[in-house]
Amino acid sequence: MASKIRVTVWNEGVHEKTNEKVKKVYPDGMHTVIAKALKAEGDMDIRTATLDDPEHGLTEKVLDSTDVLTWWGHMAHDKVKDEIVDRVQKKVLEGMGLICLHSAHFSKIFRRMMGTTCSLKWREAGEKERLWNVAPSHPITKGIGDYFELPHVEMYGERFDIPEPDKLIFISWFQGGEVFRSGCCWERGHGRIFYFRPGHETYPIYYDKNIQKVIANAVRWANPTIRQAHECPCYKAIEPLPPQE
Amino acid sequence: MASKIRVTVWNEGVHEKTNEKVKKVYPDGMHTVIAKALKAEGDMDIRTATLDDPEHGLTEKVLDSTDVLTWWGHMAHDKVKDEIVDRVQKKVLEGMGLICLHSAHFSKIFRRMMGTTCSLKWREAGEKERLWNVAPSHPITKGIGDYFELPHVEMYGERFDIPEPDKLIFISWFQGGEVFRSGCCWERGHGRIFYFRPGHETYPIYYDKNIQKVIANAVRWANPTIRQAHECPCYKAIEPLPPQE
Amino acid sequence: MASKIRVTVWNEGVHEKTNEKVKKVYPDGMHTVIAKALKAEGDMDIRTATLDDPEHGLTEKVLDSTDVLTWWGHMAHDKVKDEIVDRVQKKVLEGMGLICLHSAHFSKIFRRMMGTTCSLKWREAGEKERLWNVAPSHPITKGIGDYFELPHVEMYGERFDIPEPDKLIFISWFQGGEVFRSGCCWERGHGRIFYFRPGHETYPIYYDKNIQKVIANAVRWANPTIRQAHECPCYKAIEPLPPQE
Amino acid sequence: MASKIRVTVWNEGVHEKTNEKVKKVYPDGMHTVIAKALKAEGDMDIRTATLDDPEHGLTEKVLDSTDVLTWWGHMAHDKVKDEIVDRVQKKVLEGMGLICLHSAHFSKIFRRMMGTTCSLKWREAGEKERLWNVAPSHPITKGIGDYFELPHVEMYGERFDIPEPDKLIFISWFQGGEVFRSGCCWERGHGRIFYFRPGHETYPIYYDKNIQKVIANAVRWANPTIRQAHECPCYKAIEPLPPQE
Repeated sequence: MASKIRVTVWNEGVHEKTNEKVKKVYPDGMHTVIAKALKAEGDMDIRTATLDDPEHGLTEKVLDSTDVLTWWGHMAHDKVKDEIVDRVQKKVLEGMGLICLHSAHFSKIFRRMMGTTCSLKWREAGEKERLWNVAPSHPITKGIGDYFELPHVEMYGERFDIPEPDKLIFISWFQGGEVFRSGCCWERGHGRIFYFRPGHETYPIYYDKNIQKVIANAVRWANPTIRQAHECPCYKAIEPLPPQE
Repeated sequence: MASKIRVTVWNEGVHEKTNEKVKKVYPDGMHTVIAKALKAEGDMDIRTATLDDPEHGLTEKVLDSTDVLTWWGHMAHDKVKDEIVDRVQKKVLEGMGLICLHSAHFSKIFRRMMGTTCSLKWREAGEKERLWNVAPSHPITKGIGDYFELPHVEMYGERFDIPEPDKLIFISWFQGGEVFRSGCCWERGHGRIFYFRPGHETYPIYYDKNIQKVIANAVRWANPTIRQAHECPCYKAIEPLPPQE
Repeated sequence: MASKIRVTVWNEGVHEKTNEKVKKVYPDGMHTVIAKALKAEGDMDIRTATLDDPEHGLTEKVLDSTDVLTWWGHMAHDKVKDEIVDRVQKKVLEGMGLICLHSAHFSKIFRRMMGTTCSLKWREAGEKERLWNVAPSHPITKGIGDYFELPHVEMYGERFDIPEPDKLIFISWFQGGEVFRSGCCWERGHGRIFYFRPGHETYPIYYDKNIQKVIANAVRWANPTIRQAHECPCYKAIEPLPPQE
Repeated sequence: MASKIRVTVWNEGVHEKTNEKVKKVYPDGMHTVIAKALKAEGDMDIRTATLDDPEHGLTEKVLDSTDVLTWWGHMAHDKVKDEIVDRVQKKVLEGMGLICLHSAHFSKIFRRMMGTTCSLKWREAGEKERLWNVAPSHPITKGIGDYFELPHVEMYGERFDIPEPDKLIFISWFQGGEVFRSGCCWERGHGRIFYFRPGHETYPIYYDKNIQKVIANAVRWANPTIRQAHECPCYKAIEPLPPQE
């Protein structure tokens, strides 16, 4: 019997305290909605952590017992301490999965993993989004058909400044005329990273069944095969070498 | 008439001052040997810069008039100021080419661009290396045949902890039994990055004609097509949208 | 002085003879419009060839003096002789550039190079298309801004059954709600391949200035660096080997 | 309870009948050795098929009940009927896994899937090979350490004329001085393809425990997530379109 995937759902958790509109949609924070949906899948153990927790809730101990970390942040990216970003990066490179949601495109950790600015175009106009599945055989699109729709979203438009994804999963169509690479996979070190675009705080995106399914699929896909530190060892020759002069 | 490619050859420049063996091989520093070789190509304007220069010789003004930056560093990676690394990263993402040489695999700037540890195996035993050309139609291998050899090198062995290269150019065979992805291309932002393995400070690697040819080819390949800052603009809808509720 | 790029513009040329609507848009065939646009660039020598020519106009001699071949076909894909497809494939693998236009997604040569079905969704409803530039530093998008539009097109929708492109250049937005990877680059053998979506025969797509610019840019990008046959030689050991038992 | 993976082990089976040396190493054919090793894994149902079987043992019925097909061929590549190659390609694009072994680099099916010549350098000198694991977190390298060795092999050297692998798994070092991309992954259509270099008929390669482990891992990795035909449907607009003129 396989043991459960240990997921830590991280949320900045600021909008929900300061913005009435967001408070209404997510009275207990976005993380609780995401956590509840993942828990219902049955094969995952879920914890949550937020910016205000000591060490942002991401201690060595927590990360060492986290298989996959999901990340949502927006207005407080700069409040995330660099030493915690260092730590998360190290764990991802050692194998921990990382799923960056929506405005986490501009989080310190995502930009750190990508090496690029991760900039994009954006607009808050409550328009329609349609996510096209361009990788129907990929585990992340399991149970998703040709496409799915979200009635009201914040728009993100190209060019998205990211390294060419190892695998492109979703391309979004927006009512206002833009497109976006909305689901992207990368491998870095021994870890797997998935960026998933939807998720604005003023819309009930994380209650959507397709969104929940994609995040759950992504957690399973990003579940580590190994956890292993990177070393830079002096290495003895395997084959005989002539004596050095 | 095309104007010349403006190259800045950066060298940490510490080994050459502190190690008698290195001083003998590179009395005026590795950068002068690289610079001289590139200048001889005829289509490049060359400057050099070192760690000890003010702002490491990499002021805004220098970088804005640099098309391609080559980087060699080893024992003083940590001495490179973070604000200079930020600046170089920004310029690369805006289009400036970056060529990282040998032990620059562990430089702050290369790790920053990659997002990974860039660790590897290594050995100093003066063994033979043979670099196999796996991309014969790529501009970086112009004039290089099936392979070329270096009689005495420091060994670098896999696994090299890098993102899968956009294009793999060279694979090395080492006498002691290892292999290495010795020439790797990536695109990040609007910039092009080439990592080239050979180059240990105690061997006359940068006097080698094939090495010089590859670096010159790489400079031409990395020469920017555009220089453009990244923005994250609020973007007006192109198509008409229904009024927001 | 660099010599001119030798381009052969291939066109099936059947619609223009059999369909009144197409005849009106392209009285002398699509190939003549494309050829004229490329000729006007000044750095290319242009020939045309069609299905009805002996050997479809693609003799050994023609291909050996062709740097880049552009291909348009639709209703007569099956009429293209397999031995000509073999020959074109061989030349591409040896270095010749190949640019496949619109309905050439289903041509024998494109499917041969890809190894996949190259199927997609389609609709003829004269709707609007907007091509977003996701690779602003790539030579193929030189002079193209954030996006360009075509007022009336045939729609192609995802999932497009192609190998993950080496580089994705354009993503299309369609008025009817679909998206498409409309500009895709691959390298195969020593040759470069570009697929470019727009181009339906009943609309004046090839008169469009942006379309002409992209095709010209693609020709320059696909211009061979080498022309070299592939061999599978028995190869003598470079290093000494122990005697075989 | 997951059902077993249905594997068909295909072997040309000619060398074993015509060459005394091969007969001695593989008295019942290479396929029986591979089949036995996979059966011992416990999670696979194994069938074998050879060139001499009716339809080469690869009827519609067999392929429809095959999750992953392994392929070994060498001297009789040309004897494989084109309609069977068409059929296998179709099934791979619909989701069936394909594992091509050693000299299958020149098989019709592998070349068909790749679109390239798949040529390489080769030598029969019984030398040593060391396969370096460059993807330690990939499921195909599960249980394989930094590297493993084969004491006597046929050499394959670069340049290997393949499309850039989606993921590079092994790089080989050869005693005679060459290197080779010995384990390569691609996705085509809905199917996964793995090429694995070792396997010459005159050496007992398929008795090697590491070789068996890699093939078993590759079977699990290539096990389809979906089986689905590709269609090219006329597609109704999702969004309202203005009436056509």
